[in-house]
Amino acid sequence: MTAYNAFYGQSGGVTPVINASAAGVIQTARQHSDKIKNVYVGEDGIVGALTENLIDSSLESDADIEALKHTPSGAFGSCRYKLKSLEEHKVEYERLIEVFKAHDIRYFFYNGGGDSQDTAHKISQLSETMGYPITCVGIPKTIDNDLPFTDCSAAAGLASDERGLGPDIILFPEIDFDEKAFLAEVDATVKRKGFCCVVVSEGVKRPDGVFLSDSGVRDAFGHAQLGGVAPVVTNLVKDSLGHKCHWAVCDYLQRAARHLSPVTDVEQAYALGKAAVELAVNGENAVMPTVVRTSDSPYKWEIGKADLADVANVEEMMPADYISDNGFFITDACRTYLQPLIEGEAYPPYKNGLPCYITLKKQKVAKLTGTEFEIRS
Amino acid sequence: MTAYNAFYGQSGGVTPVINASAAGVIQTARQHSDKIKNVYVGEDGIVGALTENLIDSSLESDADIEALKHTPSGAFGSCRYKLKSLEEHKVEYERLIEVFKAHDIRYFFYNGGGDSQDTAHKISQLSETMGYPITCVGIPKTIDNDLPFTDCSAAAGLASDERGLGPDIILFPEIDFDEKAFLAEVDATVKRKGFCCVVVSEGVKRPDGVFLSDSGVRDAFGHAQLGGVAPVVTNLVKDSLGHKCHWAVCDYLQRAARHLSPVTDVEQAYALGKAAVELAVNGENAVMPTVVRTSDSPYKWEIGKADLADVANVEEMMPADYISDNGFFITDACRTYLQPLIEGEAYPPYKNGLPCYITLKKQKVAKLTGTEFEIRS
Repeated sequence: MTAYNAFYGQSGGVTPVINASAAGVIQTARQHSDKIKNVYVGEDGIVGALTENLIDSSLESDADIEALKHTPSGAFGSCRYKLKSLEEHKVEYERLIEVFKAHDIRYFFYNGGGDSQDTAHKISQLSETMGYPITCVGIPKTIDNDLPFTDCSAAAGLASDERGLGPDIILFPEIDFDEKAFLAEVDATVKRKGFCCVVVSEGVKRPDGVFLSDSGVRDAFGHAQLGGVAPVVTNLVKDSLGHKCHWAVCDYLQRAARHLSPVTDVEQAYALGKAAVELAVNGENAVMPTVVRTSDSPYKWEIGKADLADVANVEEMMPADYISDNGFFITDACRTYLQPLIEGEAYPPYKNGLPCYITLKKQKVAKLTGTEFEIRS
Repeated sequence: MTAYNAFYGQSGGVTPVINASAAGVIQTARQHSDKIKNVYVGEDGIVGALTENLIDSSLESDADIEALKHTPSGAFGSCRYKLKSLEEHKVEYERLIEVFKAHDIRYFFYNGGGDSQDTAHKISQLSETMGYPITCVGIPKTIDNDLPFTDCSAAAGLASDERGLGPDIILFPEIDFDEKAFLAEVDATVKRKGFCCVVVSEGVKRPDGVFLSDSGVRDAFGHAQLGGVAPVVTNLVKDSLGHKCHWAVCDYLQRAARHLSPVTDVEQAYALGKAAVELAVNGENAVMPTVVRTSDSPYKWEIGKADLADVANVEEMMPADYISDNGFFITDACRTYLQPLIEGEAYPPYKNGLPCYITLKKQKVAKLTGTEFEIRS
């Protein structure tokens, strides 16, 4: 059987464990050299494929690839670039095939959330739509709990306990923001315990469908209110109830941090990358490996698969029975679901007080197409 | 010898290890029961002394006090309440003496930064100014590197390394902000490596003395620009150089986090609390224990002491030779100084994926004065 090269790309917002998926892909591909010659990694995801900026993963040592398991953020760069449909922007697909042909790429692995699985789905159709033989497997990013079929994520609500620590109110994107009820709940909580801790999703909307973060506040230069939804809610509480408020945004301090990750998260991310390669070398196209829960307690899971056609652009919502009746907190059912996902402490090695994150060589593959491709901005 | 009660209070912004100092105070006081009957902890620092809201630490178990060593934030509440001078507000001092007398308090320990040491200094003068016999010892908060005489803190610059990771530019409060030079440095860095990571101190000032964060930007409701200095610098770079920018504020996510602390930090915080009690029972008044470095490599330190009169309200600046010639980075001398302070990883115990932080009983001592005291707002 002839071996071909594989493309792997990271896409969307990076996470503490997306590089563990990369390690799963590259290590597993190295075990299948009869089918996969080399893994070329896109610099900045699909953008690297379009611009022929391919990183030669074979030049990275086994130890360095292993160290990706405890290295956060996107080791190869990421992008937020969504392929348009074939009808709208055929030139992109033609360019991808040009690059794939030039570099003998017939496996395509794409690691990301909903939009990225849409890209993977479009690529998986290239055999059919453009006659180019490719095997495409999506790899879910385990930070996202909005992908259907896969069992993953964590939540702030778990930090609350019977001692009154942790958040008191959670504003979910699934629940329309009810200003009056929210302020009443804050007021009651402050009266009861002296303070109130609110966790707000950036996706919270008013009943008219407008994002709370888009409440029209602009600074003197016309910039939208920086900081997103947090200062909007803070000002609302301050102006309405007169309480002293403090807000903080976790942002990349949380979502790209890797000084502490749940063991479950690292293991699932790796297993998904590994499974993607195994699916591909077994000739499965247009699929995405998933995490399937088989037991809550003790937590057990196995790898399943879903069709990319069913995954692409489908956003999974929080089940209604995971949200309390008043809309401001999680239920015991939600807690049961989430609990296993934060268990186990995976620490990276340290040297001189700093985590030993790996910086790869990231040497580029020589360009072969002889043409440039301009990226839509 | 007669034993008396002690007052302990936490003050100012809380830290990951201020409770380790509390453990040092309470455990050491328990070993000196011949001189210290009990430690009454102020609810919200000095405010608790003024309002007679005293927490009875004797009702907390040894195990719970030990667990304070890995519990972040202020276990007993904190405040930002600065005593005025005796001339300006004598009523506060009279009230303190009323409470101290009622509860047989003759030891006073105050844990905080510069303003808090000023409070400690004022209290230490009560024997002289008001004829009330008190022994007062300040305890430095080890997150603050702006206290004189004591060897402590950490810095973002350490995260940078020869691989180009970590911050590229640091804006120090010690260096006037030079907008033109800053923008040129950002531009050169982006051209060289594709991105630029800037760390900005909230205390950065323009040459005219105005804080960069006070640049007059207000939202539609007249609120000052939320988020402090970060969005100001972000907008400056965006508007002047056209780069895409992202800002984040570490804030309490960093300064009250305790899922990972340097061993040095925890050990020093504890040792300072312990030393404070030892100084007090030896009859030393108006002093503050300090960390004295005796060797850089291997890092060695011992406990020294300073007079509160020399500490109060003196802000220590970063030595000029710790800042690079262009004003935008740390020197090797600074790195040598800072390196030992981040070494060692002190992890808390975990249960079900969450750190086992202790919540104390915090049972109040019965009020004895029979009078209320209104706190200045």
